[in-house]
Amino acid sequence: MKIINMDHISANPILPEIKDVMIEAIQKDYANPSSQHKSGEQAAEALVKARKSVAELINCAVAKEIVFTSGGTESINHAIKGVALANADKGKHIITSNIEHNAVIRSIRRLKSASYKVTSISVDNQCRVNPQDVAEAITDETILVSIMHSNNETGTIQPIEEIGKITREKKVVFHTDAADSVGVVPVDVQKLGVDLLSFASNTFYGPAGVGGLYVRRGTRVFPLLDGGVQEHNKRAGAENLIGIIGMGKAAQLARQDMDKTIAHVKGIKEKILKQLPDYIDEYIINTHPEYSLPNLISISLKYIEGESVMLMLDDENIAVSTRSACATGSLRASHVLMSLGLNHADAQGTLVISFGVDNTKEDVDKFLAALKNAVTTLRDISPLYNKISQTK
Amino acid sequence: MKIINMDHISANPILPEIKDVMIEAIQKDYANPSSQHKSGEQAAEALVKARKSVAELINCAVAKEIVFTSGGTESINHAIKGVALANADKGKHIITSNIEHNAVIRSIRRLKSASYKVTSISVDNQCRVNPQDVAEAITDETILVSIMHSNNETGTIQPIEEIGKITREKKVVFHTDAADSVGVVPVDVQKLGVDLLSFASNTFYGPAGVGGLYVRRGTRVFPLLDGGVQEHNKRAGAENLIGIIGMGKAAQLARQDMDKTIAHVKGIKEKILKQLPDYIDEYIINTHPEYSLPNLISISLKYIEGESVMLMLDDENIAVSTRSACATGSLRASHVLMSLGLNHADAQGTLVISFGVDNTKEDVDKFLAALKNAVTTLRDISPLYNKISQTK
Repeated sequence: MKIINMDHISANPILPEIKDVMIEAIQKDYANPSSQHKSGEQAAEALVKARKSVAELINCAVAKEIVFTSGGTESINHAIKGVALANADKGKHIITSNIEHNAVIRSIRRLKSASYKVTSISVDNQCRVNPQDVAEAITDETILVSIMHSNNETGTIQPIEEIGKITREKKVVFHTDAADSVGVVPVDVQKLGVDLLSFASNTFYGPAGVGGLYVRRGTRVFPLLDGGVQEHNKRAGAENLIGIIGMGKAAQLARQDMDKTIAHVKGIKEKILKQLPDYIDEYIINTHPEYSLPNLISISLKYIEGESVMLMLDDENIAVSTRSACATGSLRASHVLMSLGLNHADAQGTLVISFGVDNTKEDVDKFLAALKNAVTTLRDISPLYNKISQTK
Repeated sequence: MKIINMDHISANPILPEIKDVMIEAIQKDYANPSSQHKSGEQAAEALVKARKSVAELINCAVAKEIVFTSGGTESINHAIKGVALANADKGKHIITSNIEHNAVIRSIRRLKSASYKVTSISVDNQCRVNPQDVAEAITDETILVSIMHSNNETGTIQPIEEIGKITREKKVVFHTDAADSVGVVPVDVQKLGVDLLSFASNTFYGPAGVGGLYVRRGTRVFPLLDGGVQEHNKRAGAENLIGIIGMGKAAQLARQDMDKTIAHVKGIKEKILKQLPDYIDEYIINTHPEYSLPNLISISLKYIEGESVMLMLDDENIAVSTRSACATGSLRASHVLMSLGLNHADAQGTLVISFGVDNTKEDVDKFLAALKNAVTTLRDISPLYNKISQTK
């Protein structure tokens, strides 16, 4: 049973070359990279190599500024809680946006209960933060700005470089959750002017459950995991070396093939957007026409539930999602879609279609045909749709 | 170059059957276990299977009480910080011992700076905590007792069951760091009476960088990683599914082969302890004769540096360690050895010899011969040894 994966945002397949290096690493029986005997040194060298490769992907000049973690969520928790706790003597004010991932929202909520104050910036109806709003929100008490690089539900890319100029000028630490951007679009920590940047290996076809945090030298941040001396004393615990080696290879390939990959997924995105009106009507595209990820489209289908469409497509062996996999099970409408002004019904009618190097144009044709079928079937049984049709 | 691994405490090799399931998992391109389409379901099922297997290894009746983490260090940080923060309204007093792993010591140190109070129990000269000392240290303010199951430098096993009886009677949450015990000796969370128990996959020949935390139902503990709904809302973040599947298989094998494995490593331990006097003199065995791990011996060699011995053995392709790999680079004598009354020089002369299923009796013979050679050579050039020899 071949499944057409139009849900790459939830999980990317691991590329064959990455699988090969991971399998090689499994067979190798690496020792502990912290051990001082020679088998430990081999493991330590593998770690150095992976760190260099990941550093290069985000144009980080000093590889030691990369901290390996168990994924985007750990990186985000580390950045936000670590900066907040390390800088509490300076102030307890944090600035974020209304459309962040739950890892950011809930890390900050945890800090609120420790008497941190939070300003959450609203986005415009195209899901973008206005840098000027960040500038105006900064006070003498502000110790951290955390604004995501791209949104995982709409794909909208934020004006991080402009915000970075403001935070640098005002000397406030700036973290960006780039978990859906790194490896997908060019991300350059020097150019962005961020102090911390979170990313995840699976976004660029590496294994899940591995990620990293860029920490600019001199940034005051406490470890989230206290214990041993690993990761230059920034993150304790025996390393997931197999996963890290996989991420290192994935970073190398992502950097090397980025133009080609972007061209491929952009082609799919454009094909879907262009052909969609031939298949269905009455929908809203939530994805920014200019500032957005090349591998994702968010579409709100009027009068029907996104979840029903997802399940019907699943019956046809096509995987899509309705929102972040991290929010599965929540009955509430997406906070992201509500923030950009969608009404509750439209938010509930949303599909997130995300694609990758393994998708073909035939996949798109099959997806569009199946989508048409699902939408037609569901609208036929939708009381709301029938009522509205009759009044037309 | 074949290396004789007498440093299993730093890293165990992954067993062939475990490698096979990990490689199969890599090839399978699992989706995100939180996704609601059918590829997500396959991933979710793999997670359920691994959780059940791990639960069985520690006799945990409800598999959902197992939280998968990125390893022992994360589990320990989660348990200690999570209990402390969730129960701060009840009190801020924590009880621990002088011989804990750095993950425990430094997690607690972090809490000290948030005005938590700590009582650290001394061990006797055989590295054991007296349960009565724990009972006497408990006050109305005590919210957590954290005492390790076995010590990673001496192998000494603590009277956890006795302490568990006390904490249950006094209604204080009890965490044990069992990172070097689970999968090595029988560990039964029901019998031990603990509320939280940390463990690591590599200890039982699974991959490094994966572990788990047992959390008894009803225990008040905050997540360490806030974000998505994974791990029954106890630990956010996309799962390291390949690692978790490996740990699941490792748990199954550890349980099934435990008697055989214990018999094998015990045989090696007894052979070393018995033959050691034929090879070297003037040493102290720091390992408890009765309550200790079957796979580890700690030995303090008088008049010489453990690190020099380790490096000489490394030249002979024999890996041993001098202390916890997590403490590599520290110039200070081990806090564990100092706690059990060793003087500074003897502590610095310590070797930790740890072995596993892959070691043979020939390995032991080669190790003992190389050890004799290293000790003799180093003592010949040791001013202290020569001075003492002359006075004899």
